[in-house]
Amino acid sequence: MTIDDKNGTTVQVRNTDFKPRRGFTTWLIGKPLQTADAPHQTIGKLIGLAVFSSDALSSVAYGPQELMMMLAAAGIASLQYSLPLVLGIVALLTILTISYEQTIHAYPNGGGSYIVSRDNLGILPAQIAGAALLTDYILTVAVSISSSVAQISSAFPGIYRWRVELAIFFIMLIMIINLRGVKESGVTFAIPTYFFIIMMYITIIVGLVRYFTGTLGIVTNPPELTILAEPQALGLFLILKAFASGTASVTGVEAISDGITAFREPRSKNAGATLILMALILGSMLIGVTFLSGQVSAIPSEHETLVSQIARTVFDSRGFLYLLTIIGTTVILVMAANTAFADFPRLGAITAKDGFLPRQLTYRGSRLVYSRGIMSLAILASILIIIFKANVSSLIPLYAIGVFLSFTLSQTGMAHRWWKSGRLAPGQEKVEPGSVVRYEKKWLIKMIINGFGAVVTFFVTIIFAVTKFADGAWVVVILLPILVVIFFSIHRHYQNVAAHLTLEKYAGQHHMSRHRVIIPIASVHRGTLKALRYAESLSKDITAVHVSIDDDEAAKLQQKWETWGDGVRLVILESQYRLMIEPLLNYLQELNEQRLENEMITIVIPQFIPKRVWANALHMRTADTLRKVLMGQKNIVIVEVPYQVD
Amino acid sequence: MTIDDKNGTTVQVRNTDFKPRRGFTTWLIGKPLQTADAPHQTIGKLIGLAVFSSDALSSVAYGPQELMMMLAAAGIASLQYSLPLVLGIVALLTILTISYEQTIHAYPNGGGSYIVSRDNLGILPAQIAGAALLTDYILTVAVSISSSVAQISSAFPGIYRWRVELAIFFIMLIMIINLRGVKESGVTFAIPTYFFIIMMYITIIVGLVRYFTGTLGIVTNPPELTILAEPQALGLFLILKAFASGTASVTGVEAISDGITAFREPRSKNAGATLILMALILGSMLIGVTFLSGQVSAIPSEHETLVSQIARTVFDSRGFLYLLTIIGTTVILVMAANTAFADFPRLGAITAKDGFLPRQLTYRGSRLVYSRGIMSLAILASILIIIFKANVSSLIPLYAIGVFLSFTLSQTGMAHRWWKSGRLAPGQEKVEPGSVVRYEKKWLIKMIINGFGAVVTFFVTIIFAVTKFADGAWVVVILLPILVVIFFSIHRHYQNVAAHLTLEKYAGQHHMSRHRVIIPIASVHRGTLKALRYAESLSKDITAVHVSIDDDEAAKLQQKWETWGDGVRLVILESQYRLMIEPLLNYLQELNEQRLENEMITIVIPQFIPKRVWANALHMRTADTLRKVLMGQKNIVIVEVPYQVD
Repeated sequence: MTIDDKNGTTVQVRNTDFKPRRGFTTWLIGKPLQTADAPHQTIGKLIGLAVFSSDALSSVAYGPQELMMMLAAAGIASLQYSLPLVLGIVALLTILTISYEQTIHAYPNGGGSYIVSRDNLGILPAQIAGAALLTDYILTVAVSISSSVAQISSAFPGIYRWRVELAIFFIMLIMIINLRGVKESGVTFAIPTYFFIIMMYITIIVGLVRYFTGTLGIVTNPPELTILAEPQALGLFLILKAFASGTASVTGVEAISDGITAFREPRSKNAGATLILMALILGSMLIGVTFLSGQVSAIPSEHETLVSQIARTVFDSRGFLYLLTIIGTTVILVMAANTAFADFPRLGAITAKDGFLPRQLTYRGSRLVYSRGIMSLAILASILIIIFKANVSSLIPLYAIGVFLSFTLSQTGMAHRWWKSGRLAPGQEKVEPGSVVRYEKKWLIKMIINGFGAVVTFFVTIIFAVTKFADGAWVVVILLPILVVIFFSIHRHYQNVAAHLTLEKYAGQHHMSRHRVIIPIASVHRGTLKALRYAESLSKDITAVHVSIDDDEAAKLQQKWETWGDGVRLVILESQYRLMIEPLLNYLQELNEQRLENEMITIVIPQFIPKRVWANALHMRTADTLRKVLMGQKNIVIVEVPYQVD
Repeated sequence: MTIDDKNGTTVQVRNTDFKPRRGFTTWLIGKPLQTADAPHQTIGKLIGLAVFSSDALSSVAYGPQELMMMLAAAGIASLQYSLPLVLGIVALLTILTISYEQTIHAYPNGGGSYIVSRDNLGILPAQIAGAALLTDYILTVAVSISSSVAQISSAFPGIYRWRVELAIFFIMLIMIINLRGVKESGVTFAIPTYFFIIMMYITIIVGLVRYFTGTLGIVTNPPELTILAEPQALGLFLILKAFASGTASVTGVEAISDGITAFREPRSKNAGATLILMALILGSMLIGVTFLSGQVSAIPSEHETLVSQIARTVFDSRGFLYLLTIIGTTVILVMAANTAFADFPRLGAITAKDGFLPRQLTYRGSRLVYSRGIMSLAILASILIIIFKANVSSLIPLYAIGVFLSFTLSQTGMAHRWWKSGRLAPGQEKVEPGSVVRYEKKWLIKMIINGFGAVVTFFVTIIFAVTKFADGAWVVVILLPILVVIFFSIHRHYQNVAAHLTLEKYAGQHHMSRHRVIIPIASVHRGTLKALRYAESLSKDITAVHVSIDDDEAAKLQQKWETWGDGVRLVILESQYRLMIEPLLNYLQELNEQRLENEMITIVIPQFIPKRVWANALHMRTADTLRKVLMGQKNIVIVEVPYQVD
């Protein structure tokens, strides 16, 4: 405890040793952490890969499959175009990787689309990027979890009818884990991620070996084909649509640039290397899975996933290795949802700190995580799962459009940043909220790279919006502007409040010239008298007011007041329409009209507090209603004198 | 306005001319009525019959049918026993009528089971009767409305799948009518009731004429038979069970004795004559319908009602007269629900006035009706309709048991009353809450009549409970004791509160020896300073308290406070676990422990009030939470200084 005395004001700072009680919550999410306990450990490339790549890598499990379901609209034969299309997606991945590698070096403190757009494009593009990203994090959870449930029900078809319940169970599980705050406890992540990578490579390599030795068979008992579009001839539109479906596979690229601060120094170098490593693994897996699915004649189906079909064909049965592959895939998909659980609350907090989302999102819960953001994400994703019945194919048209929009904004922002960088003299610095801009010799080539990335991702966004519009993309196209408008309304509210409360140019309060006290009373009892006694300590000018709906009762009350009321003036308002609040408000309105300058009106409300909450239902609670109504009135102070009955 | 000055206390009585605003509610239920507008008009026998008999008469539409569905379990042939069983029910009706005729004369101010039991048997039997009746009113609504929907769907089978929606629509309609308060506007009732009586008699008489002239055919295209029990041989159990189902037809007998006050003088005589008239009509209809249904070989079915089958056979087609009969039946069933809407809120108010139900039920709404009771009934009945899918046969096993239990209690009470009456000397009077007991010459015969009624209804109750137990009566058997326990808990609460608040033996409040004021502040702004200025008017002993979760912000706040805080002491509580409320409570706890006798602690809370309600979601609302927590603490007064931002 320190005591300080400045300008005549005594200030006491006390370290409260108050520890929150243990209860169900502490059992569920662990004992509370002190603010000083915030972890500052950093991670290397190998753990970093595990932590940030689950979203990207897991998309191997649904990206190629969605692409093929779309192509299948032109007949099974058209599945031969899967591989070229996936190669196109790998090319897109390459462009994104090179672009983002530059971002990582420019923004060593974290360079998500929101921050890059805010620094380089302005507040509106930043909010658009923010809205797009937040929407997509929700979709990431919904898609990944739905896909992980689809993996399980490929192995155990009986699960299929429980998929929504299981998906929500998974989301709740991840929510609890995240509320515990194990976010960056690397090993937890490393094991399943590397397990998935290993199982996937085993499957692909064994498949390739068997292909080259000519012993690879085709899928036995293939599942029923799922076609997502009307049967049609193979045309440009269908090809673009299939391509758009496949782009879901590259949506996880931004994760590392969001989380650069988690890396060990030299941060940017480590993070950049991790990004490239991730892209290599993802690209090779995408090509491997697509190639093998063609060779084993796998059928894109919502009843059994491609990965399941490939694995059971490569391993010749639903044996041990098959099961390990399915488990690995399921777990990495759950982990992918976890990435969104790390990013959504963080972006929510940044946006909220800028005043575009409710400020509560910046508050860290008992485990030092943004609990409200985590819970919001879980609820919103669960709602999506319920609406879309945990069906990946229905969710995909909503997914990716936001990601690509934010990619476009981020790349455009980066291009502009290089341009700014080129305008500076060597050694000159420009400090921006998210980073420091310095002169960069190779600014032109870097600008061209990011500019090219911007153009490509812009076209993908357009392709996606057009080809998927009718399938669901329209929802996002409508939703994003609405979100942006809401963000700005919130911002306006906060600015408005701040302007009203500021002490700049504040002349101070006037002293009160008169203090009038009103006590509304329903009957005369110990609680009323307690309130009366308190009122007498405030002012000499007291009026008790009773709203009467029954003459006999009013007469009884008057008699009692004459005995117990200390001579205080009583006003009885006869309420012909049996309304309790309105006549009183009317009366206060009258007082208000005759009020002097700087006259203060205080309402002393006797508040009955029963011991048990249910007992509130047995009382009229007029006092509570009265308080709520009066809170909106200017220059009225409300004093509640509680009387407890136990 | 009158001003009165007694014992040194000025009392002002003002007639507020405040008129409630017009809005959606006034549009829906009509403009508010003044208390003085309460109608005191009374009604004669003919209107009285219409008002109070719809419940009883309408049971013709489902009573015989339910009885037959039960019998049908022993094969179609066993339906021949319907008529003898219905004759038994008519005998029961006769006994009840004679018994209740006596009650009506003994209780000219209303003699429902609750009042009779309370005066003669004591508080526990009264509450049992009350619980049983309230439950049955809810069931009356559910059964009548479900049956009325069944009538409509007999004529228009397409309605069948919308029966739940339609039933709830009807309930809402009746609720609104009752909230308007047209309860005893006789003509509204007279038209449909007499219309039903006439149509029913036309059907029966035409049927009988055709029967005696040998031109009555049998039902063409009979509906599918509905059997409610497992196929079995006809045994005593099944016969009793069928009888129990049929007793639903006599449940409406009590209505008139509840509403005696509505009759013109001589009240009891008019009410008694109406009761007998009603019983005659009901008995003849029951016999007529059952007899004809046997002659036309009507099939008890949930897809077409007996009334519909009889009417289309008697009138040879689904023609005009058929339609009128169906309309009449539908409307009277809706009216029957309306009877419950008159009785439930009234009984609720009586019970609440005795302190066994929430007091809010005694409050009359803008149209002088017990709005809360009306709405509760509508909601509860709708829930039943949804649970039981508007199926009359599923609801019947829950119905009637409560009615017969309350009949038993009422008759037992009456028997006891005659016994008391026999003990009095001629001319001697005993005033009871519900009536005045006088010496009655024929007390013995009257006691025997009511005693016999009690025994008969007791046996019916037992038969009902036993034969219907497994079908649903168990719900009521479990529910009633629970309700009675709840009623008594409520009563205990009110007594407890009254004991705590009474001014008897009250020594008065002590004057405060010290007044300590605490202002919790989150930041220093105009609202905080307004609260500070108010606090300064209360006491010189003020402490501002800030719970800090961020050292930098606390330092900024301290600096601002040194400038603006008027030299008032500031305590900063460092909250390591980022909790806002608990450290403050802890601090208050400490103050509380050192507190002097009669020391008062006041918490002055600066309350932020945004102009728009949605804006509340953008603020932490810690002040609100704090208030809620502090309200439970003893000897702490809460002052809210609102500051509005617009």
